[in-house]
Amino acid sequence: MPSALILIADGTEEMEFTITYDTLVRAGVSCTSAFVSAADAAPHNKKSPPPYAIGSRGMKILTDQHFTPHVSTPEEYDLFVIPGGAKGAETIASHPRVQYLVRVYLQEKKFVGMICAGSMAAKTSGLPKQPLTSHPSVKSELENDFEYSEEPVVVSGKLVTSRGPGTAFPFALTLVELLCGKEKRAEVAGPMVFPPGTFA
Amino acid sequence: MPSALILIADGTEEMEFTITYDTLVRAGVSCTSAFVSAADAAPHNKKSPPPYAIGSRGMKILTDQHFTPHVSTPEEYDLFVIPGGAKGAETIASHPRVQYLVRVYLQEKKFVGMICAGSMAAKTSGLPKQPLTSHPSVKSELENDFEYSEEPVVVSGKLVTSRGPGTAFPFALTLVELLCGKEKRAEVAGPMVFPPGTFA
Repeated sequence: MPSALILIADGTEEMEFTITYDTLVRAGVSCTSAFVSAADAAPHNKKSPPPYAIGSRGMKILTDQHFTPHVSTPEEYDLFVIPGGAKGAETIASHPRVQYLVRVYLQEKKFVGMICAGSMAAKTSGLPKQPLTSHPSVKSELENDFEYSEEPVVVSGKLVTSRGPGTAFPFALTLVELLCGKEKRAEVAGPMVFPPGTFA
Repeated sequence: MPSALILIADGTEEMEFTITYDTLVRAGVSCTSAFVSAADAAPHNKKSPPPYAIGSRGMKILTDQHFTPHVSTPEEYDLFVIPGGAKGAETIASHPRVQYLVRVYLQEKKFVGMICAGSMAAKTSGLPKQPLTSHPSVKSELENDFEYSEEPVVVSGKLVTSRGPGTAFPFALTLVELLCGKEKRAEVAGPMVFPPGTFA
């Protein structure tokens, strides 16, 4: 069974997180959410239960675990996902261990997904110039360093980027297709009842 | 500011819940989530903090309050929402107080939204025959009692119904339009970056 580590922080866009997590679970992918603390947060007690994240629109999501370096390696997961939401993406993209893992996942030929402002992690991780998209609000910070695209989903080798909540379904379904194949994508999309002509 | 009460239970489809809640918050609607216990659950201590709901795909969402009859009336909210997810919708649609409130909200000319298997609440509440849609999996239980449609979103007076996670964005945006107007819908949809041609 493929597995995915999906990061989350205070300020993460809850639709982007939820659509990715839920759609991957529907495809049989084992999903784990990991809470990334802001650098200035008080150090957590690693024995304490994982906290809840307060999303960009106030929803509270209980996370599966703390983001700790030793449980987040590409030996354990096939996919590493960074959702958007300006404040959450800033916390995640500025975390040195996240930046390190983005590079290591790609080196190990595992998938890395970034959506919305989450695509800022491509820049903070120092990835080489390649096709990429993001939320329009951070386009100006990325267009000089990447081959900026306005497609809903951009696949560049193992790096998959997308734009916002409105592209979260095609983003998640593309990840399903890459991890589990085209047939599984169709099998998952059917019961979700998309309006005719969308995300086909 | 318009306000919405969004029900949630164990087994609620987390994308339908999250997309509705988040999109309404983006429109400036004050959203409250209320946890509906299964009939056979141990009675909760009303002074205890609201519980988390375990969604249909395992996500844990902290709710804003318990569903208690005296805080859920149409004097307090402009919109009453019942999301899907087979098990969650069953818990919610079979709750006598939910059924009563569905009728009272509509009598008081307040909006009621139902999506996916949540549309079963139209039947359990004894609503009169009218246009309606639902997840295809419960169509056979509804098509004799309603004018069944396969449109992504069906508006019948103050009753708004929809089909599944794949129609949750047009469902939420329709609720925004009905509560806040066409301009607000466009203002909210823009930054969500839908692929061209979808949900326009």
